[in-house]
Amino acid sequence: MFSGLSAFPLTPMNESGIDEAAFARLVERLADASVDSIGALGSTGSYAYLTRAERARVAQLAVKHAGSVPVMVGIGALRTRDVLALAEDAQKAGASAVLLAPMSYQKLSTDEVFDLYETVTRYLSVPLCVYDNPGTTHFEFSEELYGRIAQLPNVRSIKIPGVPADPETAKAHVERLRALIPPHVTLGVSGDAFAATGLNAGCETWYSVIGGLFPKTALAITRAVQAGDTQEATRLSQRLQPLWALFGQHGGSLRVVAAAAELQGLVEHPSLPLPLKALEGASRKQLAVLLDELELA
Amino acid sequence: MFSGLSAFPLTPMNESGIDEAAFARLVERLADASVDSIGALGSTGSYAYLTRAERARVAQLAVKHAGSVPVMVGIGALRTRDVLALAEDAQKAGASAVLLAPMSYQKLSTDEVFDLYETVTRYLSVPLCVYDNPGTTHFEFSEELYGRIAQLPNVRSIKIPGVPADPETAKAHVERLRALIPPHVTLGVSGDAFAATGLNAGCETWYSVIGGLFPKTALAITRAVQAGDTQEATRLSQRLQPLWALFGQHGGSLRVVAAAAELQGLVEHPSLPLPLKALEGASRKQLAVLLDELELA
Repeated sequence: MFSGLSAFPLTPMNESGIDEAAFARLVERLADASVDSIGALGSTGSYAYLTRAERARVAQLAVKHAGSVPVMVGIGALRTRDVLALAEDAQKAGASAVLLAPMSYQKLSTDEVFDLYETVTRYLSVPLCVYDNPGTTHFEFSEELYGRIAQLPNVRSIKIPGVPADPETAKAHVERLRALIPPHVTLGVSGDAFAATGLNAGCETWYSVIGGLFPKTALAITRAVQAGDTQEATRLSQRLQPLWALFGQHGGSLRVVAAAAELQGLVEHPSLPLPLKALEGASRKQLAVLLDELELA
Repeated sequence: MFSGLSAFPLTPMNESGIDEAAFARLVERLADASVDSIGALGSTGSYAYLTRAERARVAQLAVKHAGSVPVMVGIGALRTRDVLALAEDAQKAGASAVLLAPMSYQKLSTDEVFDLYETVTRYLSVPLCVYDNPGTTHFEFSEELYGRIAQLPNVRSIKIPGVPADPETAKAHVERLRALIPPHVTLGVSGDAFAATGLNAGCETWYSVIGGLFPKTALAITRAVQAGDTQEATRLSQRLQPLWALFGQHGGSLRVVAAAAELQGLVEHPSLPLPLKALEGASRKQLAVLLDELELA
């Protein structure tokens, strides 16, 4: 399950709770599109903003509505104690894998992060994907730490935050990482703008935000690479450049993708937990025009 | 209550829960030393790592054991929904004030942070202290935003993350901030290494980590400034320079202060929530020697 397109759906919510029906529909769309895996409760699924009970419920719904598509569930939390509890809940819900980012409030040391992964992988009975997302966790993995964590039991993939923009440099980067980790551990690219370059450079997986909302568009890029057509993948990704630019302007993809889902009528407004807000006003109108132009609407 | 020494105790805990007896003792020591206020569940009190129920309990214990010293309680959380619930709990527990940092997972915009404070202050019936701590929240307040938030009802103090090291530059900095905020809102310095300089530069309060463990030492610096003896305050702070250096070497004060409390026998080991760890090995021994040399032991 750690290759191809892994699609990360939003968890639509408001101040009263989770919109379970809308979440179920988002997951069903992904299953219908035959993505390779579904990443529930990733950063796009706002895992960090939910209670343990809410997260258990979302995990259950994801598994229920994903059909035969394997589901990976985010178990990140500030405390090791809570990560272990969330791992148990995810496994009980039927998750095929878990995704763990080293969330922080106090800045974490390399040893603290290694010990976290060592403790959690010891208790797991499903595979784990290491989630490296310095923009939200404020922890920078060293390549040496990738190598050490990749040796732990149950570790099967590393979700890296992007690759260099230049294709040759990206290839060298991915090859260097590959040399540090065992063959049974895959590398997956995230940061949608980098995905085509990352896949073309040898990443086995795309952990994808737009894949959670526009699975066909993300699958076209993924399948092009898998068929060896790197040029077509690059072309399809470059076509989406205005969307990548919007992500950059609004502190990442979440506020943009949430607004897109609202504009499509797939989720109600608001869909993000306050204080977070989806795009409003002129930016929202700009997004609506863009979705039309890119034929994503 | 927003002037003088505000002392921030640790919340001693392990993987099973909070050491309530040890926490009560830490708070009683602060009350016995006659600090001007107690900041329970600050960053030093590991607020971000506790459940709502645990935080309510810590707030109750703090108020109970603080005697006549007013208690401020940290109510920060990633979601506005949770901040409002924590504010209610703190008020029910008898807190004299609340402390709110804009915690983040997704990077927050200025508008999102302003709206958070506007929403929370509208519901409060006790004063609020704005907690600016970019090292943990990853949000940078602009001076303009200080000014806007300081106008909101119930805002009575701003806890700033430090001041420039040069006394004249620090004075200019504090005067510029003062001009932006109403007279009923005080400025409090944090980052213990900056405290003497900040107080000498006109900050009314020291929101103090070492004050939570060594209240007499922190009071001596505070009272020197209040008596107009800026040189004595500077001398007393410079004496602690090796301690400030240790804070810098270990990603902040928490791991050092937790180890110091353990070494003093005031709390058991471990006292921090995993994955966080107090100083170990050679650093811990170095700290023990230092506490002796500085006559803090």
